[in-house]
Amino acid sequence: MSGLFVVFEGGDSVGKTTQVDLLSRWLDERGLAHVRTRQPGGTEVGTELRRLVLDPAYGDVSPRAEALMYAADKAQHVHELIAPALERGEIVISDRYVLSMIAYQGAGRELAMDDIAHFGWWAVGGLRPDLTILLDADPGDAVARIAEKDRLEQAGIDLHHRARAFFLDQAAADPDHFLVINARGTREDISSQIRQRVESLLPG
Amino acid sequence: MSGLFVVFEGGDSVGKTTQVDLLSRWLDERGLAHVRTRQPGGTEVGTELRRLVLDPAYGDVSPRAEALMYAADKAQHVHELIAPALERGEIVISDRYVLSMIAYQGAGRELAMDDIAHFGWWAVGGLRPDLTILLDADPGDAVARIAEKDRLEQAGIDLHHRARAFFLDQAAADPDHFLVINARGTREDISSQIRQRVESLLPG
Repeated sequence: MSGLFVVFEGGDSVGKTTQVDLLSRWLDERGLAHVRTRQPGGTEVGTELRRLVLDPAYGDVSPRAEALMYAADKAQHVHELIAPALERGEIVISDRYVLSMIAYQGAGRELAMDDIAHFGWWAVGGLRPDLTILLDADPGDAVARIAEKDRLEQAGIDLHHRARAFFLDQAAADPDHFLVINARGTREDISSQIRQRVESLLPG
Repeated sequence: MSGLFVVFEGGDSVGKTTQVDLLSRWLDERGLAHVRTRQPGGTEVGTELRRLVLDPAYGDVSPRAEALMYAADKAQHVHELIAPALERGEIVISDRYVLSMIAYQGAGRELAMDDIAHFGWWAVGGLRPDLTILLDADPGDAVARIAEKDRLEQAGIDLHHRARAFFLDQAAADPDHFLVINARGTREDISSQIRQRVESLLPG
């Protein structure tokens, strides 16, 4: 695949959407074709799966069923949207990807992260991002800013600490494909670090 | 778990529903509490997942997404219905279970059966049936009798032959937990063989 696959990861309310916006605008200014998307969601099937997982009307969705539905969302997303765009040589920016699924489905202790990683990467046919931008913040700060409440947010602060540790471990193990940024920096400073790294990955 | 978990497997139109009916009626006559169900489906989430996979309105659902949605259906089914019934000491009869998922999702050659088996058994927390009744028939006979057409049925006769070979291999490897019956026998003869084997598994 000839395009560039950039993923934003990190806890809730760390400013991912803002930074995706800024990066997208910068790419537009340079006339670079790109697709922005988010997980879960991004496809019709994915939107339905997200609804099934989050809508309290469906009651007690089992943790295993939930994890598998998130994996199905990823599979469809890569198939329908991400892989075709990369094959056209475009840049794809995704707000969350496989690591979020492993982090949040596995951080609740009930399910092993290794199992989730196994079918999570299988779901996307092993497609790894060229760059994962980790916006890192102490969950104690970030969670306090969350307005929207859904099932994921109710899981408590410990889960967010374990998820953060997972993200940081992944980044430390593969620095060539990660950019870790302190999410408490200024919006402009963070954006500038991201542009610099993305620019280094653009062809010629 | 103290109940008894009986699964019917086999190709389409081999008479599974009829035999589930007959077994269920016989258990009723003996006053034995049981739950009958089917996969995919059987729970509210499962029904929605089945709709997502089968409704052509959702277009090109990727094979990986489809397999993961079937696994999610199984996870929810065990969590919400099968495990609680077995814990109450009841008999559970399911029309299809994990092996059908592996057989049909994996028989299309695009996905490896081993991968599907891995997350399929993970989905159900490793819960194996006490008895799997395989109604075996030559797919050339069975498929001709199919009236309902959906995405699964369009996949062609080769897939059904590979699925049959998989079912037979599984049964051959674990005869203590399988009963293989020629589905071309008479309804009464098949039913009698099933009753005999189930009776041998009932407590005292």
